[in-house]
Amino acid sequence: MPAVSDLARRLLLGDVRALARGIRLVEERDPMAEGLLRRVLAHTGSAHVVGITGPPGSGKSTLCDLIIECWRRENHRVGVIAVDPSSPFSGGAILGDRIRMQRHSGDADVYIRSMAARGHLGGLASAARNAIRLLDASGRDRCLLETVGVGQSELEVMQTADTTIVVTTPSSGDAVQIIKAGILEIADVFVVNKADQPGAPRVAKELREMVHSARFSATSLHGRQSRGEWEPPVILTQAVIGDHVDELVDAIDRHREMLSITGELVRRRAEQLRAEVEAIVVERAAERARKVLHGETMAAMLKGDLGSIDPYAIANQILEQGAEG
Amino acid sequence: MPAVSDLARRLLLGDVRALARGIRLVEERDPMAEGLLRRVLAHTGSAHVVGITGPPGSGKSTLCDLIIECWRRENHRVGVIAVDPSSPFSGGAILGDRIRMQRHSGDADVYIRSMAARGHLGGLASAARNAIRLLDASGRDRCLLETVGVGQSELEVMQTADTTIVVTTPSSGDAVQIIKAGILEIADVFVVNKADQPGAPRVAKELREMVHSARFSATSLHGRQSRGEWEPPVILTQAVIGDHVDELVDAIDRHREMLSITGELVRRRAEQLRAEVEAIVVERAAERARKVLHGETMAAMLKGDLGSIDPYAIANQILEQGAEG
Repeated sequence: MPAVSDLARRLLLGDVRALARGIRLVEERDPMAEGLLRRVLAHTGSAHVVGITGPPGSGKSTLCDLIIECWRRENHRVGVIAVDPSSPFSGGAILGDRIRMQRHSGDADVYIRSMAARGHLGGLASAARNAIRLLDASGRDRCLLETVGVGQSELEVMQTADTTIVVTTPSSGDAVQIIKAGILEIADVFVVNKADQPGAPRVAKELREMVHSARFSATSLHGRQSRGEWEPPVILTQAVIGDHVDELVDAIDRHREMLSITGELVRRRAEQLRAEVEAIVVERAAERARKVLHGETMAAMLKGDLGSIDPYAIANQILEQGAEG
Repeated sequence: MPAVSDLARRLLLGDVRALARGIRLVEERDPMAEGLLRRVLAHTGSAHVVGITGPPGSGKSTLCDLIIECWRRENHRVGVIAVDPSSPFSGGAILGDRIRMQRHSGDADVYIRSMAARGHLGGLASAARNAIRLLDASGRDRCLLETVGVGQSELEVMQTADTTIVVTTPSSGDAVQIIKAGILEIADVFVVNKADQPGAPRVAKELREMVHSARFSATSLHGRQSRGEWEPPVILTQAVIGDHVDELVDAIDRHREMLSITGELVRRRAEQLRAEVEAIVVERAAERARKVLHGETMAAMLKGDLGSIDPYAIANQILEQGAEG
C-alpha cells in the first residue's frame, strides 16, 4: 500500500494535512487506518495524554484553552481531541462552547479536532485512542482529550488518558453523584471551577474527604492500580479570569512526573493496551458471528426445527472456523 | 457424563428437583449446564414464553399471580422466572412484593424461581433464557419471565419472550419516557394498571396514539420484524381487585395465535437465536482474550516497549489461534 506508507511518512514528519487525513481514516474506520497505525506505532508513547471531563457548562473548554496556552508558552506541540456526546440535542451548545479553543487555530503547533459519537459508542473510544496515537506520532508531545459527561462511553474514552482531570462546579450537583458515576476511580486531578459561586469551598472540602477516604479503601472498580503516594488534588479555579489555572497545569506536571518515576505510567498503559486488545477481539468476534449468522447456511437452518439447534455448538464453530464456517 | 444424562432424563419427565438443580446449574454458569441444555434442547419450543416488565410498584407481581391463576384454570403447567435487578437497594421491597405469587407454591404445576443479577448483566439474560428452556423441556407450557424496570439488561432479558407485556401506572411518569427507554419496540401488550388512579384514561390514550403511529413508522430499533396486522393493545387493569385481567389473558392468547398463524413466532425465535449465538461468541472471545492477555507471554511483552505492540495484530492472533496463542 504505497498510499499508506506515504501517508505514514508525511504524518511522522509532522505534516498537518497527513494528520487530518489519518484521523479521518481512524474516525471512519477505514480499512487503511490499521496499516497506517501499524506504521506509526513505534513512534508513539512520548506524548503525555491528559483527559478532561465534566458536565456541560462546567467550563472545560475555557480550562482547555488556558492549559493549551500554558503548554505553548513552554514550547510544547499540542493536539486536542474533543469528543462530542451522542445526543443530537446538545450538539450545538457544545460546539459553540468549543469555539473558544479555536483562537489557537492560527497556531500550527495546536491541532484541534472534534469527534462525534454517531451512535457508535465502542467505536468512539477506539477512534479517539487512535487519533491520539496519530497526534503523538506526528510530534505532538501534549495531548488533550476532552469529553462531556460521565457516561459509560466517556469513561471508556478516558481510559486512554495518562492523567485524567474531572471538572465540576458548585452548581453541578452534589459530590456524591461523582462517586456513583465511577468518576472517583478515574480522576487524577479534580477541578472545582467557578470558584466564585456559593458553595465552592464546601464542594472542594467534600471532594477532598472523598478522595482521602477512597485512597484507603480497596482496589478501584475499574481495575486501575492503586495510585501509591498520589492523592488526587482538588483545585479551585475560576477559568473565566484565568485564576489558579497555573496550579492545575502544575498538578498535571507533577502527576506526569509521578507516573514516570514510579513506573505507574508503564503499568497504566499496559493495562490500557490489554483493555484495547480485548475490545478489538470482542468487536471482531461479533462481526464474524454476524456474518455467519446472516449467511445462507444459517438462514436455511433457522427455517427448520429451532429446537435442534445448539447455540453453544454454533458459537464454538464460529470461534474455531472463522467467517468461513 | 452419566450425572448429566440422568439429570436430563429426570428433568424431561417433569421431576421438580431435577428442574431446580438444572436451573441452579445454568444460573451458576456451571460447566455441566451446557451438556444438560444440549440433551434437552430438542424437547423445547412448545412453551409460550410471556415476558412482563414495568417499574417497581406497578403491580406486576399481582398481575402475574392472576395470570397464573387463569392458566391453571385452563390446566396449563406454569413456570415463572422472576429476574431481580442488580441494585442491592431495591432487593427487599421486590422480594416482599413477590411473596404474593408464593400462594401458588403448594401447586406442583406452578414452578416459581427468582434469579439475581449479581452484577453480571449479560450472564443474567443468558441464565434466564436457559432457565426458560429447562422449564419448557420439563413440560411447562406457559412460562412467565418477570423483570423490573427498563434498563438495557431488562431489554435483553425480554428478548427471550414470545409475547412481551409492559406494565405502567398513571403515576409512573409520562408515556414519552417509555419510548425513550426503547420499550415501545418490544411491547406486544401494554397494561395500564391501577386504572382507578387519576390520569389512567389519559395515559392509556397517549399509549394508544404512540402505538398507532409507531406501527406506521420505519422498522423498529431492535431489529424486530414488523408486527404485520398486530397493533399492541393497551389494557386498563386494576389488579388488586382482579379487574380486566381476563382481558389481558385474552390478549396474550390472541397474540400467541397471531404469532403462530403468521409465522412470526418462527421468525422471532430465529432472530433471538441469532442474538444469543452472537452473545455467546462475544463472551467466549472475551474470555479467551483475557486468558491470553493475562498470560506470561503477554506480561513479558507488556514490560517492554509498548510502542512496538500492535493491538490489532495481537487481537487477530487471539482470534485465530485461540487460548493457546
